[in-house]
Amino acid sequence: MLIVGERINSSRKRIHKALEQRDAAFIVKEAKKQVAAGATHIDVNAGTSVSGEVDDLCWLVQTVQSAIAIPLCIDSPSAEAQAAALKLHKGRPLINSITAERERAEGILPLAKEHDALIVALTMGEGAMPTSKQERMDAAGEIVEMLGRFDIPLTSVYWDPAVSAVATDQKAATDVAETVRDLVATHKGSHTICGLSNISFGLPQRNLLNRTYLTILMAYGLDGVIMDPTEKHMMSTLLSAQVLLGRDDFCMNYIMSERDGRLAGYETHPAVQAK
Amino acid sequence: MLIVGERINSSRKRIHKALEQRDAAFIVKEAKKQVAAGATHIDVNAGTSVSGEVDDLCWLVQTVQSAIAIPLCIDSPSAEAQAAALKLHKGRPLINSITAERERAEGILPLAKEHDALIVALTMGEGAMPTSKQERMDAAGEIVEMLGRFDIPLTSVYWDPAVSAVATDQKAATDVAETVRDLVATHKGSHTICGLSNISFGLPQRNLLNRTYLTILMAYGLDGVIMDPTEKHMMSTLLSAQVLLGRDDFCMNYIMSERDGRLAGYETHPAVQAK
Repeated sequence: MLIVGERINSSRKRIHKALEQRDAAFIVKEAKKQVAAGATHIDVNAGTSVSGEVDDLCWLVQTVQSAIAIPLCIDSPSAEAQAAALKLHKGRPLINSITAERERAEGILPLAKEHDALIVALTMGEGAMPTSKQERMDAAGEIVEMLGRFDIPLTSVYWDPAVSAVATDQKAATDVAETVRDLVATHKGSHTICGLSNISFGLPQRNLLNRTYLTILMAYGLDGVIMDPTEKHMMSTLLSAQVLLGRDDFCMNYIMSERDGRLAGYETHPAVQAK
Repeated sequence: MLIVGERINSSRKRIHKALEQRDAAFIVKEAKKQVAAGATHIDVNAGTSVSGEVDDLCWLVQTVQSAIAIPLCIDSPSAEAQAAALKLHKGRPLINSITAERERAEGILPLAKEHDALIVALTMGEGAMPTSKQERMDAAGEIVEMLGRFDIPLTSVYWDPAVSAVATDQKAATDVAETVRDLVATHKGSHTICGLSNISFGLPQRNLLNRTYLTILMAYGLDGVIMDPTEKHMMSTLLSAQVLLGRDDFCMNYIMSERDGRLAGYETHPAVQAK
């Protein structure tokens, strides 16, 4: 399972400040704690940069990789920023993201090919969020056609069906779950990845909904997630789902996580006991 | 969704004592708190009775139904005890349970017919726990044949595929999930129900696994559960899954549960904050 740690994103105030001040110690700390929590990739995003996304993204890549050994998820829609960051990156990168929008994809796919990158492919076209399973499947079809032209295998692709709020569209959650299942069945060898937090927009107890939705999507075949791995309840849910979906041999990862204190044990905490 | 409250079971020490002492106040309190927590049925089980299961079960039916309005789940393998309890029961009862074992089923099915009962049907034959999907499907086939002879419709049936421990059999969890899906697809109109706690036997953080497994089974189509509805985290998981599976119109039940303080809000509790 791909677990992309999302904390190093300049839309977060504290990260924005650290970027401006070139506060390497803070960024390294953020990266290390995500690795310790179980991230397989660290997302780096400098999208709100004032001084220039290219410089900021390159600095993030070098700063994070000076301290940790896992690969990064280079998070930018800009081919220019991707090109500069990928040149500095060590290991097999994850590019986040392309869409079915031709200009964006055709700028980034040659870079993906050159660096043998994994690619997050949002199943959407120009601009607007997809609103149905069919729109998502259609966008994926267009992307597959482009991947073919650049000779990129489906095994490098993580489809992101773009989760939207269940409070405003009751079918939003099941549509995306079924899309996850259908994408993997239709495009053999490909993978799926999601961010979860949009699902719960406008509803109470958002983390509860996000966690439960992660489980449902994993039951439908999801094998990648963009999340805050230090959110212990979410990570505990993920680890337990791995056991129950037959993806954790001898439950070893689950058992070791408990030994390391990484499973949230709220059920025994007196402050939150139900009875 | 059928939510069968499992707390009134004589295998629990406190219930055993209340039964012996005919402590109606205690039993009524146990029933009421399960109704308040969202149970649709209250299980009554006097299986460990010393003075006699028939008398004890009848007393439980009358005691509980003197105080609450929802139907009961009459929990006994004995046709004699079922007959006596069903005679006293008001409303549409749930019988728990039959198996493919002919003698047991043929004793109970005429009673089910007479009382238009819903029936929990364990997908197992004589004695031994089923160990594969095929064994479960075969047992269900035998039961369907018997239901036909007694003219009982599939819509009255809740299959229980008999959950076993994932720690000792890595395929146990996925086998049961797939069985849930296949039972409903094969026997149109029928339902499924599970107890969850066996799944986590031998592993740490059992409630976490039980909750996550409930979500997975619901994603595979489960529409009944035998649980302790006062276990707030489990119930919160169920309520959030209903939203995400499109089974809670306008999220009304979820939102009302939050207003009533029935959703576990541990994510905001300082004692269990991840960060």
